[in-house]
Amino acid sequence: MEFIPMTFDPADPRPLYQQLYSWLAGEITAGHLAAGEKLPSKRSAAANLGVSLNTVETALGMLIAEGYLTSRPRSGVYVADVSPLIPAPRPAAPLPAAEQDERWSYRFSTSGVDVSLFPQKIWARIAREVNADAPALLNHGPAEGEAALRGAIADYLLGLRGVRCDPDQILVGAGMEYLLGLLAPLLGGRVAFERPGYPKARRILENGGVTLVDLPVDRAGLRVDLLAESGATAIYVTPSHQFPTGATMPVGRRLDLLRWAAADPVRLIVEDDYDSEFRFDGKPVPSLQGLDPHGQVIYVGTFSRSIAPGIRIGYLVLPRALLGRWRQRFAGYSCTVSRLEQQTMARFLAGGHFTRSLNRARGQYRRRRDALVGALRSSFGKDLTLLGAHTGLHLVALPGVGLTERELVERAAAISVELRGLSYYGAPPDGLPGPGVVLGYGTLDEGQIADAIALLVKAWKNQGAEAGKM
Amino acid sequence: MEFIPMTFDPADPRPLYQQLYSWLAGEITAGHLAAGEKLPSKRSAAANLGVSLNTVETALGMLIAEGYLTSRPRSGVYVADVSPLIPAPRPAAPLPAAEQDERWSYRFSTSGVDVSLFPQKIWARIAREVNADAPALLNHGPAEGEAALRGAIADYLLGLRGVRCDPDQILVGAGMEYLLGLLAPLLGGRVAFERPGYPKARRILENGGVTLVDLPVDRAGLRVDLLAESGATAIYVTPSHQFPTGATMPVGRRLDLLRWAAADPVRLIVEDDYDSEFRFDGKPVPSLQGLDPHGQVIYVGTFSRSIAPGIRIGYLVLPRALLGRWRQRFAGYSCTVSRLEQQTMARFLAGGHFTRSLNRARGQYRRRRDALVGALRSSFGKDLTLLGAHTGLHLVALPGVGLTERELVERAAAISVELRGLSYYGAPPDGLPGPGVVLGYGTLDEGQIADAIALLVKAWKNQGAEAGKM
Repeated sequence: MEFIPMTFDPADPRPLYQQLYSWLAGEITAGHLAAGEKLPSKRSAAANLGVSLNTVETALGMLIAEGYLTSRPRSGVYVADVSPLIPAPRPAAPLPAAEQDERWSYRFSTSGVDVSLFPQKIWARIAREVNADAPALLNHGPAEGEAALRGAIADYLLGLRGVRCDPDQILVGAGMEYLLGLLAPLLGGRVAFERPGYPKARRILENGGVTLVDLPVDRAGLRVDLLAESGATAIYVTPSHQFPTGATMPVGRRLDLLRWAAADPVRLIVEDDYDSEFRFDGKPVPSLQGLDPHGQVIYVGTFSRSIAPGIRIGYLVLPRALLGRWRQRFAGYSCTVSRLEQQTMARFLAGGHFTRSLNRARGQYRRRRDALVGALRSSFGKDLTLLGAHTGLHLVALPGVGLTERELVERAAAISVELRGLSYYGAPPDGLPGPGVVLGYGTLDEGQIADAIALLVKAWKNQGAEAGKM
Repeated sequence: MEFIPMTFDPADPRPLYQQLYSWLAGEITAGHLAAGEKLPSKRSAAANLGVSLNTVETALGMLIAEGYLTSRPRSGVYVADVSPLIPAPRPAAPLPAAEQDERWSYRFSTSGVDVSLFPQKIWARIAREVNADAPALLNHGPAEGEAALRGAIADYLLGLRGVRCDPDQILVGAGMEYLLGLLAPLLGGRVAFERPGYPKARRILENGGVTLVDLPVDRAGLRVDLLAESGATAIYVTPSHQFPTGATMPVGRRLDLLRWAAADPVRLIVEDDYDSEFRFDGKPVPSLQGLDPHGQVIYVGTFSRSIAPGIRIGYLVLPRALLGRWRQRFAGYSCTVSRLEQQTMARFLAGGHFTRSLNRARGQYRRRRDALVGALRSSFGKDLTLLGAHTGLHLVALPGVGLTERELVERAAAISVELRGLSYYGAPPDGLPGPGVVLGYGTLDEGQIADAIALLVKAWKNQGAEAGKM
């Protein structure tokens, strides 16, 4: 190239070096200047273009820095091969349709909750107030979570769950998956796990490199008596509301569990206190954590179900002895929950809105539980066995209609009622009188529950009767 | 115990069984009923109390379920040992004071940004609108992130970074730490890493069980020529703006990097495109991902720095071939970002607010960069060497004043100016003319920059002169 065939536009407000840069980058990108072509010397280019040497040097320097041009010492400046640098734009694919599942008329989901019970207007008002205070909250916050939120959680946990901790033992994170995933490598290699148990926790712990040792569950929860011989150094347990059987672990067994831990100071208990807020009969059993004199219980909690699953705020309460290891391992990690949302939650808790909305939701869910239990009892009478109806948003029903678990599930599916068999979650407890299904009722109102059970009765009894006739 | 010494309060609106339950639980909790004490039979208790058998059975059943009482078959009901069940309430500890650091007059932080540049009012307005649409957003959302947000990110990435992807390749998560932590175990055992490099990414990958192989960086970024013999199966790289040297990897080396990957289909490149939004001179170099014909580049992006660090939204763009493995491993994991915040971000992007606020911030930061470069040049003249001043919110200055790196850092600290030496991040590139310091200027305005550099000049030059006099 003898000279740079560009003319400056006097109307262009940009500095000359930028105009030159843009023009050259555009020509190279468009392929008008071929790879390997040599540019004129900077001096001659400046003379030809009628600009200062500095203008040319600045523009070429930028293009060299970005790979459009190559500078060979004592030789000159050459056009680089940038053809693959420039992808052809293509239109974004259409957005995938929102997940819908029209197959089911009724879904007995164990994970769903009724978000219409959430006081969304109050939450939105508090969020608005927090946003008005926002500038201070836009920058980096404490890695462990906002002090205001950790204080409010500590107060709540002491009052409602008997959890004894200082706010500095609380770590806030974007849901239970995240926190349990961080925790997994700190539990040692071998972790006892309930069978049947919570599939999501199983997956997270396994993804965290842990070897799980399954221990059976009976109608009082995990078989703590089998723990010593399991060789586990830690255990994941749901003592308030075993998933999925709903068993509440009695005090004696809780104390045995703590004694197992106390026998070796490296042992740890992960207490997932899932759904303990939704205890319908009697007052809640205090947490294991509150009984633990030696600081070996890690308490795991979440607001996903008690607030709204779309808002992701969970927390761990770590024993003081673990805090140092945690901070060392995760130094520099940022808190995963937006500060605005943490402050909204803190005010929602401290203002009493959480307790009030929980009481209201608990009343609603109790009515649904009563409707479900009533419909099941009146339909299946004395053949029915129920497990775990006192707490949480699901229960286990053993209808006693002489069908296998698979038949129960498939006949329900045939009339578009979704439910899972108990053994989906692992081998059921010994000594049950028959197969069972897990019925989550968080998303069904009383009318829907009555209709769904009426359908199930037909599917299970009539078909059973027909089968008997054959 | 011969009988239950309780009287019912006719003014108490609660059902009788609940009153009985509460009274017994209270007596047991308070230690008035001793562990091991036998209760009267249900029938005699009902007669004594003047209530139905059902009332007594219900109350005792609750107390048994919760561990206050124990039932021994063919013997009776006994008070359990619940003393450790009842922790003494204690006041919550005072909240820790907000983290403050008064030691420093000026902090050249590489992680800080100026949140006053964020259009907080617009964000708050959009958040309000989203909250008004909330009911649909309170329930579980797609695990990969909101479809609207993933579409908006795909559009943004194509337009500004040349990233070619469909929205279904995008995974939204609560910041880069979280996503890189999930990704780590999918990278194979041996991952090449830049030296000097980004300490946070180093820690996350190591916590994820990866063995890092350090490769040196020169003034054109990672030494890609050393990659083949390193034995790595994957690499973490910052090609647009190497951390901390600020080098932009030229096209030739980018193509070499892609050729290394193409030589073995299991090889993966993690492209952390950190701070590429803040390119001040010339147009941004397109991403590696956009150059990659074989789908071996995983693109990592975050809005933490371009929006506000207090809002945690990051994303991965996964090659299509990895999507299956990802979904299998993380099946059932929920998205870690609140749906309300995802939808706010989606509207902020789609409405053009993000691009506008980015352009405004870029202009502000460019002026600060110019002020910093100008002050450094006029203070240290031809002895000064600068690295990485074109992009990002920090640069590396080699002042050429004849001090060691340690002296530079310590003399700055002595006048309460916080900065880090380049070697803090690992061995600096070969061939630099002297020691350097990393100057992050995101949180300093032009006046503060001028003042801080004036202080540094005194500390470095005068002290150097005094040292010379001795």
